Amino acid sequence: MFEEKLDLRLPGPVQVPKEIQRAMLRSFDHPMMDYRNPAFQDVLQETTEKSKTIFQTENLVIPLTSSGASALETAIINTVGPNDTIILCVVGYFGEYLQGITDHIGCKTVRVDAEWGKIVDPEDVRKALKENPEARAVFATHCETSTSAINNIKEIAAVVKETDAIFLVDAVSSIVGTPLYMDEWGIDIVATGGQKALMLPPGLALITLSEKAWNTVNDHQCPSFYFDLKLYKKGLESGTGTPYTPNISLVCGLLEACNMIERNGGIEAEYKRHAALRDMTRAGVRALGLELLVDDSAASPTLTAVKLNNADEFRKMMREDFHIALGGGLGKVKNQILRLGHMGYTDAADMLKMFAAMELALLKTGYEVELGAGVSAAQRHWLENPYC
Amino acid sequence: MFEEKLDLRLPGPVQVPKEIQRAMLRSFDHPMMDYRNPAFQDVLQETTEKSKTIFQTENLVIPLTSSGASALETAIINTVGPNDTIILCVVGYFGEYLQGITDHIGCKTVRVDAEWGKIVDPEDVRKALKENPEARAVFATHCETSTSAINNIKEIAAVVKETDAIFLVDAVSSIVGTPLYMDEWGIDIVATGGQKALMLPPGLALITLSEKAWNTVNDHQCPSFYFDLKLYKKGLESGTGTPYTPNISLVCGLLEACNMIERNGGIEAEYKRHAALRDMTRAGVRALGLELLVDDSAASPTLTAVKLNNADEFRKMMREDFHIALGGGLGKVKNQILRLGHMGYTDAADMLKMFAAMELALLKTGYEVELGAGVSAAQRHWLENPYC
Repeated sequence: MFEEKLDLRLPGPVQVPKEIQRAMLRSFDHPMMDYRNPAFQDVLQETTEKSKTIFQTENLVIPLTSSGASALETAIINTVGPNDTIILCVVGYFGEYLQGITDHIGCKTVRVDAEWGKIVDPEDVRKALKENPEARAVFATHCETSTSAINNIKEIAAVVKETDAIFLVDAVSSIVGTPLYMDEWGIDIVATGGQKALMLPPGLALITLSEKAWNTVNDHQCPSFYFDLKLYKKGLESGTGTPYTPNISLVCGLLEACNMIERNGGIEAEYKRHAALRDMTRAGVRALGLELLVDDSAASPTLTAVKLNNADEFRKMMREDFHIALGGGLGKVKNQILRLGHMGYTDAADMLKMFAAMELALLKTGYEVELGAGVSAAQRHWLENPYC
Repeated sequence: MFEEKLDLRLPGPVQVPKEIQRAMLRSFDHPMMDYRNPAFQDVLQETTEKSKTIFQTENLVIPLTSSGASALETAIINTVGPNDTIILCVVGYFGEYLQGITDHIGCKTVRVDAEWGKIVDPEDVRKALKENPEARAVFATHCETSTSAINNIKEIAAVVKETDAIFLVDAVSSIVGTPLYMDEWGIDIVATGGQKALMLPPGLALITLSEKAWNTVNDHQCPSFYFDLKLYKKGLESGTGTPYTPNISLVCGLLEACNMIERNGGIEAEYKRHAALRDMTRAGVRALGLELLVDDSAASPTLTAVKLNNADEFRKMMREDFHIALGGGLGKVKNQILRLGHMGYTDAADMLKMFAAMELALLKTGYEVELGAGVSAAQRHWLENPYC
């Protein structure tokens, strides 16, 4: 009956808040569409200015009309050429994207790997930098969306900062939900997308660069016209805007997302809210007797991976019987894990609903579960930490 | 009082029909957001299938989450490398984009230029191909948006077809509004964007390739991960979709645009409708005593450039007094021309309103104009050709 009803408890794309839907809709038949005029340029200026807070930076934030994956590529092709070396920190499926990008360029890559579900040891990065002193850049995923593990970006940044290399971070599924202090930690490039904890529908990517990174970019011939960051910097700083037609409605949506975050107490409140969502989720999962893929010390505030045999059959039941979509395993953990998304437009009651439905679906698929166990553990956590 | 009121008589972005607004809005809180599932994959399949009609092709149509400019780059970087030669047909500001792309790659370019407002002589292309037999590709703009001139794509295609080179066409502002028969004419790659006569807000590009083009693509190492067409082909043909998160709402909008065109009698009816809009516009402009930039034989059905001194002051009055936005001159014709957009969501009455307001604005800026002259010429044209 309810074909179009579905709770998106996914690791993105996420549900789009009504506020953002209205902000986007407003742009469709509006003077902003004449985008070289102040009606839009003022909005663009305000949006890029307010976006700085979500990166905890004073650097220029550049919106790209494209998906998050393109921001990773943009970070690399503006700084690393075919004859250069780059160190990649890979801890899962999306870390492999970085290898996909460098394979296309044909540059030399040095990998610092960790098992799926684990994170990179910053000392391994130090070793790789020592063994490859010519390395121009180190790239690490912040939240590895395929495993829900959070790399220790602060410590890796401290290691890279001691060298001439620049430090690039994929913050696609971490931004807003996970503490990330670009300037304080000394990250050189942060690349992200809008369709995760920023609560936008897909189609907008963001990238921001430190002065050290801009020095590299300015000395580097970017092979792409569309993703040449020098052209974006020139346009945004001179007030003429992006070099190519921007996704006007998503920029309007981003401004509303920034305003929503501001109204709710700012970015630190978002970190606290997502941490509370993570912790109540982990309490519920444990109470159901299920195993978490990632240790507490590296657990993402935006999604939680849970080991489960025949996970896809379970997901199918959750979807068909209860209209709740859960993420599944990618690549080598396909059908072996659930990924429970709790980023963006999600509150405590959404998670309680999910646990109540999961208890029924577990029972129906043959697990021994005490009804109410997951829900009440999550409830108890919320009573102590009512931040979400 | 009406700060948000503005008729967009621009060469794009255009007004978004209510039907498309609703189709996009529907996607925001919908199972389609879980885009690897059939709820979206079926829509994607239907959309790419229906999009074939707007290119008049049987080839696979690939949606890119990016602006139109990126589709031009995608066409080139998937077929031409740093050691290759490409022939560029440049007749205005957007033709120079092609040079911008090849400058980034560093390949050898041979230019076939025409004066702004004029078009390329196909015999000059033949000569360039003879003098540069190693040329891998010829790239021509179909509608040069900065001048409103339409290159003779059919004849250029016939010339290129006699060689091993492939023929690439920028159809960003021509698609849907201007006859373009990809398969019949033998074009190898057509690249376009959604924010012109396709009536979408910006953020989606489309590209389609002939078998001859795919043979080149398959033998070529694409330097970009995000724009590697081989990955898109593999994903779309296997039913897993685009390799990266697509702009789901714009794909839904594109499907509705295709359905609107279909309901109105198909793509040929759109050609006829746009030709009628062009011809009534040209009749009105002439009756106002203004000079058209482009000869009838090369005039675009999607926009019309008109010579006018101090055009930007005139545009300001149109915008402030009558809430009508007209396009202005780009690059070397800045402030010297108007560009009147009549693509997509535009009907005859919209053009009559524009002419009525233009008559007043011309009078107020010191021109001698007989009130009603432009309007009645356009009306008379419509009485004979009521196709818009």
